[in-house]
Amino acid sequence: MRKILVIGSGKSSSYLIKYFLDKSESEQLQIIIGDVNISNAKKIIGNHKNATAIVLDVFDKNSREEAIKNTDIIVSMLPARFHIEVAKDCILYGKHMVTASYVSQEMQQLNVSAKEKGLIFMNEIGVDPGIDHMSAMQVIERIRDQGGKIILFESFTGGLVAPESDNNLWNYKFTWNPRNVVIAGQGGAAKFLQEGAYKYIPYDRLFRRTEFLDIDGYGRFEAYANRDSLKYQSAYGLDNTKTLYRGTMRRVGFSRAWNIFVQLGMTDDSYTIDDSENMSYRDFVNAFLPYSPTDSVELKFRHQLKIDQDDIVWDKLEELDIFNPEKKVNLKKATPAQILQKILMDSWTLSDDDKDMIVMYHKFGYELAGKKHQIDATMVVTGEDQTYTAMAKTVGLPVAMATLAILNGTITTPGVQIPIKKEVYEPILKELESFDIVFNEKEVKYLGYNPLNL
Amino acid sequence: MRKILVIGSGKSSSYLIKYFLDKSESEQLQIIIGDVNISNAKKIIGNHKNATAIVLDVFDKNSREEAIKNTDIIVSMLPARFHIEVAKDCILYGKHMVTASYVSQEMQQLNVSAKEKGLIFMNEIGVDPGIDHMSAMQVIERIRDQGGKIILFESFTGGLVAPESDNNLWNYKFTWNPRNVVIAGQGGAAKFLQEGAYKYIPYDRLFRRTEFLDIDGYGRFEAYANRDSLKYQSAYGLDNTKTLYRGTMRRVGFSRAWNIFVQLGMTDDSYTIDDSENMSYRDFVNAFLPYSPTDSVELKFRHQLKIDQDDIVWDKLEELDIFNPEKKVNLKKATPAQILQKILMDSWTLSDDDKDMIVMYHKFGYELAGKKHQIDATMVVTGEDQTYTAMAKTVGLPVAMATLAILNGTITTPGVQIPIKKEVYEPILKELESFDIVFNEKEVKYLGYNPLNL
Repeated sequence: MRKILVIGSGKSSSYLIKYFLDKSESEQLQIIIGDVNISNAKKIIGNHKNATAIVLDVFDKNSREEAIKNTDIIVSMLPARFHIEVAKDCILYGKHMVTASYVSQEMQQLNVSAKEKGLIFMNEIGVDPGIDHMSAMQVIERIRDQGGKIILFESFTGGLVAPESDNNLWNYKFTWNPRNVVIAGQGGAAKFLQEGAYKYIPYDRLFRRTEFLDIDGYGRFEAYANRDSLKYQSAYGLDNTKTLYRGTMRRVGFSRAWNIFVQLGMTDDSYTIDDSENMSYRDFVNAFLPYSPTDSVELKFRHQLKIDQDDIVWDKLEELDIFNPEKKVNLKKATPAQILQKILMDSWTLSDDDKDMIVMYHKFGYELAGKKHQIDATMVVTGEDQTYTAMAKTVGLPVAMATLAILNGTITTPGVQIPIKKEVYEPILKELESFDIVFNEKEVKYLGYNPLNL
Repeated sequence: MRKILVIGSGKSSSYLIKYFLDKSESEQLQIIIGDVNISNAKKIIGNHKNATAIVLDVFDKNSREEAIKNTDIIVSMLPARFHIEVAKDCILYGKHMVTASYVSQEMQQLNVSAKEKGLIFMNEIGVDPGIDHMSAMQVIERIRDQGGKIILFESFTGGLVAPESDNNLWNYKFTWNPRNVVIAGQGGAAKFLQEGAYKYIPYDRLFRRTEFLDIDGYGRFEAYANRDSLKYQSAYGLDNTKTLYRGTMRRVGFSRAWNIFVQLGMTDDSYTIDDSENMSYRDFVNAFLPYSPTDSVELKFRHQLKIDQDDIVWDKLEELDIFNPEKKVNLKKATPAQILQKILMDSWTLSDDDKDMIVMYHKFGYELAGKKHQIDATMVVTGEDQTYTAMAKTVGLPVAMATLAILNGTITTPGVQIPIKKEVYEPILKELESFDIVFNEKEVKYLGYNPLNL
């Protein structure tokens, strides 16, 4: 039996663990799931004979080392900042490692040691990052193999609520860490390339510079720019590509409404609000508006943000109950972002029978034999329930498949890496199709941002 | 002879040094001016027999200590971050010290040592901070002595161009460090108190939430909020005051136009622009606008910021020549803020015959014998030329007067302090009047923010 240690068994581990269990006989796998809280793990593994759940505190050096020493490969599903101690042990005891997280600087520094020991440290192999890398590289390399030259690459992902559970005016619910949604876009201007020109969008304009995307059968979406669209330019081999844009997808209208929170300062996470504990939702809103003994919070709000009486954006705000003088914030020394998150969680938390949805949209513009072409590739994955979510599926399955491929020796390149090599993405994308994780490609007219070639 | 060492002889030292020279005979003063570049110092002192200029690099420990050891009191006119080494030497050699800068944490930490040695470390005794502290405390303590209770305190200062030199559409020129103007308001939401309620304004709204101020004979000004209006709440003894607001004054219309730069992201100082060196001013503007092969930068700009064709704000932008495709930025790896600063310096640099102006406006609301009252106090100081500026006068004279008062033993309280004690502000404000630095007070109807007492 080959032993797989999965550290962390939170929200996104359901499909991951189930995949291992289903293959445990044919592939001779024994799965050990370590977490400080093993109730979720126990629920998923039931009485399966090839799986055990152990209490594991990743900060307890001894038990962490003990667990790692006795396994063949380690999957870390912990929050990204906790990977590094596990990774160092993997170097020490000569174990491969797989994560769905961005490669941190600390992780990257282990590259030489990992290579020396012939160890594979596969990262960014969830959905975004993960499936986005793999699906993009597959098309990019196919175009290159045909002799084409990539002139445009745009890539968009969104974690949304499935159409059948989409019942609020924002067309949005939290399907992942709400905090990341509230502070999205902060920390510097978004940067990208359009027709060879560097473009920058500051945070306060980010949600007003969206573009539209249509997916057959699912209607229209919008996307706002990610902070750094050029992050993978070199890794993807796109150094001469003139248009590079990465973005986050929402349903149309979300960003215009969200921008109101940004403008008022409600997404700020850099300072705490005085007496936040005893504030009502209405008090919180009023803290960002001028004082008046007579004018209502509502009128001051409309006036400051120039919101007409018949603007749908107002209904979105009211739906969140932000003007309620009775509901208390009840958070001590909270930042505006933390308070806003709490208010949103009242409305945007998935119900037990809600389903989530992951959408992805790539645009590949290229020149071939003197002509310009474009391929659009889209993926939509819908969750089954609150355990088997689309998020857990698209994050967990690629991680699981990569883990098995490393064990089986079909992924062979050692070092700290991301899934942009054919040996990695080709079999995994193929296998993902059998789980209905499929990209639909279509050829469209190349427009770019300069359709008349002026 | 008592020896005064003035370290730093930049822009703001003219009046300071002249004050000392004029008193050097009657007060038996010898003035030593130390700077890495002594050309400005030499120009000001001429052949005065009681003054010498010495080359002094404050980072050269030996010469710094040597200079400090041999004097009776040290005035540091260096940028704030350079004071600390001087201050430590003052502790070591038992010398008093005077600066016009905010008390840094490092400076505050010397409080105990200074007290132990009976040394006076007087800080924040320029104009803002400085004259604002003194003039505010004088009125506040007078009201308290009469039995009044302060219910509102608002304080505004502006460094502007004098009316006779005010010849651009922004009614603004750089009279001080341009960089501080470009990045003003960044680093967190502005916080203040209105009628007992904490209010917060994020950076992207700061320049849209101004208030108006009229000064007899000088017309109307506007003010935007400083970052922390509550900084001196306790020091001033205003813990129970319901309205506290500190702001920066500009001529009306400045802030609405400035807000356009903020919205576009041009004041961002956190990242560098690619290939800034070879950009034209027009390229710089275009980097914050969507790509288009056909639409002009002007139309994209108007559309993004919703600027009507007849809006005066447009003329302000054109006056700065920001759409010029010929003028080059010529700065390597520059941040947007650095580039904007360069563009503005083309237009906003004072000419040789321009005069500057300092304006200050305090509002004191108070209750006395059951009634509400308000006193408004205003100060306007105009410069004489580019050496004897209003800024140099209002910064340098209080510093000089405090220095002499310490030498003469009329300021006696030891420790790291700011000029909020009567022994400090009373004689200095009195003497400043003889230099035409005068506050005009008038009683006005108390309005506060709740005039109908609802």
